[in-house]
Amino acid sequence: MKTERITAGLSIKRSVDAGTEDQQQIVRAIISEVKEKGDYALFAYTEKFDGAKLSSLKVTREEINEAYETLDDEMISIIREAAENIASFHAKQKRETWLYTNADGSILGQKMTPLDSAGVYVPGGTAAYPSSVLMNVMPAKTAGVERIVMVSPPGSNGKLPAGVLVAADIAGVKDIYKVGGAQAVAALAYGTESIKAVDKITGPGNIFVALAKREVFGDVDIDMIAGPSEIAVLADESASAKEVAADMLSQAEHDKRASAVLVTTSQDLAQAVAREIEKQLKSLPRSEIARASIDDYGAIYVAETMEEAVQTINELAPEHLEIMTEGALELVKDIKHAGAIFVGRYSSEPVGDYFAGPNHVLPTNGTARFSSPLSVDDFMKKSSIIMYSKQAFDQHGAKIAAFARLEGLEAHARAIEARND
Amino acid sequence: MKTERITAGLSIKRSVDAGTEDQQQIVRAIISEVKEKGDYALFAYTEKFDGAKLSSLKVTREEINEAYETLDDEMISIIREAAENIASFHAKQKRETWLYTNADGSILGQKMTPLDSAGVYVPGGTAAYPSSVLMNVMPAKTAGVERIVMVSPPGSNGKLPAGVLVAADIAGVKDIYKVGGAQAVAALAYGTESIKAVDKITGPGNIFVALAKREVFGDVDIDMIAGPSEIAVLADESASAKEVAADMLSQAEHDKRASAVLVTTSQDLAQAVAREIEKQLKSLPRSEIARASIDDYGAIYVAETMEEAVQTINELAPEHLEIMTEGALELVKDIKHAGAIFVGRYSSEPVGDYFAGPNHVLPTNGTARFSSPLSVDDFMKKSSIIMYSKQAFDQHGAKIAAFARLEGLEAHARAIEARND
Repeated sequence: MKTERITAGLSIKRSVDAGTEDQQQIVRAIISEVKEKGDYALFAYTEKFDGAKLSSLKVTREEINEAYETLDDEMISIIREAAENIASFHAKQKRETWLYTNADGSILGQKMTPLDSAGVYVPGGTAAYPSSVLMNVMPAKTAGVERIVMVSPPGSNGKLPAGVLVAADIAGVKDIYKVGGAQAVAALAYGTESIKAVDKITGPGNIFVALAKREVFGDVDIDMIAGPSEIAVLADESASAKEVAADMLSQAEHDKRASAVLVTTSQDLAQAVAREIEKQLKSLPRSEIARASIDDYGAIYVAETMEEAVQTINELAPEHLEIMTEGALELVKDIKHAGAIFVGRYSSEPVGDYFAGPNHVLPTNGTARFSSPLSVDDFMKKSSIIMYSKQAFDQHGAKIAAFARLEGLEAHARAIEARND
Repeated sequence: MKTERITAGLSIKRSVDAGTEDQQQIVRAIISEVKEKGDYALFAYTEKFDGAKLSSLKVTREEINEAYETLDDEMISIIREAAENIASFHAKQKRETWLYTNADGSILGQKMTPLDSAGVYVPGGTAAYPSSVLMNVMPAKTAGVERIVMVSPPGSNGKLPAGVLVAADIAGVKDIYKVGGAQAVAALAYGTESIKAVDKITGPGNIFVALAKREVFGDVDIDMIAGPSEIAVLADESASAKEVAADMLSQAEHDKRASAVLVTTSQDLAQAVAREIEKQLKSLPRSEIARASIDDYGAIYVAETMEEAVQTINELAPEHLEIMTEGALELVKDIKHAGAIFVGRYSSEPVGDYFAGPNHVLPTNGTARFSSPLSVDDFMKKSSIIMYSKQAFDQHGAKIAAFARLEGLEAHARAIEARND
């Protein structure tokens, strides 16, 4: 891995799959088929794409019990503890309704209401992550969403992975359906005989899932469309090359298009991390993926000063940022754009991926400039409350009518004046 | 206007313009032209679509001073007072960064950061509303966004309306450009020589603006794509038919596709409102628009009980809801889905459109089920903070590694274990 000095206008090399016209056509066809034929289409697509001939889409209590028997007790208790940590962090995000009264007696406020329902998409195969189930479901649960529906494509044996089922059960999901792909998104958006439509769909998926979410957006809400995962490490000479390299590789093993970047003020660290990455790569089970990611999307940049390094991080707006420097916490105030900030050497990224409590669904591809981690806010909505008093109305009515007339909206002015007689 | 009894599965008749293939093609062509040719394309499109041959896009201080001279002083002071009310309400929405320390010494938190920049689109012609300038700019200002850029198509005389310029100046906008349509959205998203790109674009516009926003979404953030405006009035026999009718018409005059619905427990009120609408319609300057809206998208429903009426409102999920009943404030707790709730007879909708303080940019077309009024939240983003202590790491590290291995992510486990040696 080469180390380079920072040059102006730096940005991570990023790869976002926007899908082809063909893929969009396929997705639109699937959605209209599901709209038209409901469950029948879901069974047919599940047989076609997942190789599973199902008699029922809904996961039964027996299947969940079986999943619990498959996992060892220690693992179950780890998932449970992670769920509690996530619930506890997200509870702090929850906002309550507020109202206040002005001197003129009018009342203004903001009512917070959970969404009625949410659908969580969980990918199948090797990307079936119990942690992702927790991270998507717990914020909805904490928000107070009453009906949470989970969908996930079954294996060809017609089953979902034990870890996924146990995590869903621990998170409190009652309705789990064995269906994936664009057809699952369509079912969540428009409903079928088995699956009642939801108000919002979250969760990662392949390009067909992403395109389907984009397609149904507006009829229902969706979360962001995630790109490949990214990490940036901001480090000085106090950091351990071994730890920095290990953290960069933990990101690189996700995906050949994942990105791992080090920005450091230390030329020595830069070189040592480059060597460590080579060394550690060799013994990784997913070394082929990690190798491709490091070669194509990995980078090490050396900055003259910490100020320059921080500015570079803000330009990158990474999904994950680790700060491994002296006085790391002090630097947090200078970070403007990052999905999650991991501070100090004991905050290796997997701490946040699985366990600490903050959400691991984070803005990728530079969207940390304007987007946020998945949170309780995403499962609640606000309604404004306006209760004008007679006093306020008498005081301000004529001004409001004048403003309406400035905009040429006479009926607005008359609505105010209708109260005067 | 007919009155009908409520029947199951009621929904407002709504019309959303999704744009044609042709319009999408045009918008894509405009965007790529602006990307390629920058200001040159903006000048050319402004001449072509707005009939204005400009020498400079940016509004000068002289133009703003001239605008102040055009408006009378009383109107200027009304706009100023409205801006203060909006600022004061939105200040209550602003959230601060929080951190907390667990018993094991680890620190978790959420950092709140304003977006660096925001672009506000203001429509031209008869839809150029100073109130819309205030409602889009003030939340961004309150959030702390440093660079707020406004764009609006000029008239064929090369000018923007005085009210719009004064409102922008009062709201504190420094950069105003005379450009509209898809070309303005493209400039905000990708930048030109004159206009630096922004992180988020908000504000209403015609179908070309809406399609352009949808097209650039992902590269920058956008607000919701608004549909035609809607009001639902929930009233009992205590309401004044004259006031209810006037409020419904104030919505209907916006747009032929606007919707005004009354849900009442009183057959007498229903009939009286129908008569009042006919009577008031006659003398409205925009009666042709209001008439079309009432005929095509207006409705009066009579419910057996208030409970049934409230349930109907929740099914409608209206943009604006007025409650004109005995004990109106008590009913607010039962309303689950509405953009803004106007309580009692003195809270005629224009009170909120112009003056009270809450935002008038609201979710339309039933999206109040999952969307919220424009707010300070829309101009800030969150970053999670995780600072694990050594104690927390020692206590939980092995569990985190085990969770990673359950998901087959060995490099994640090794990143944790790299800290053990």
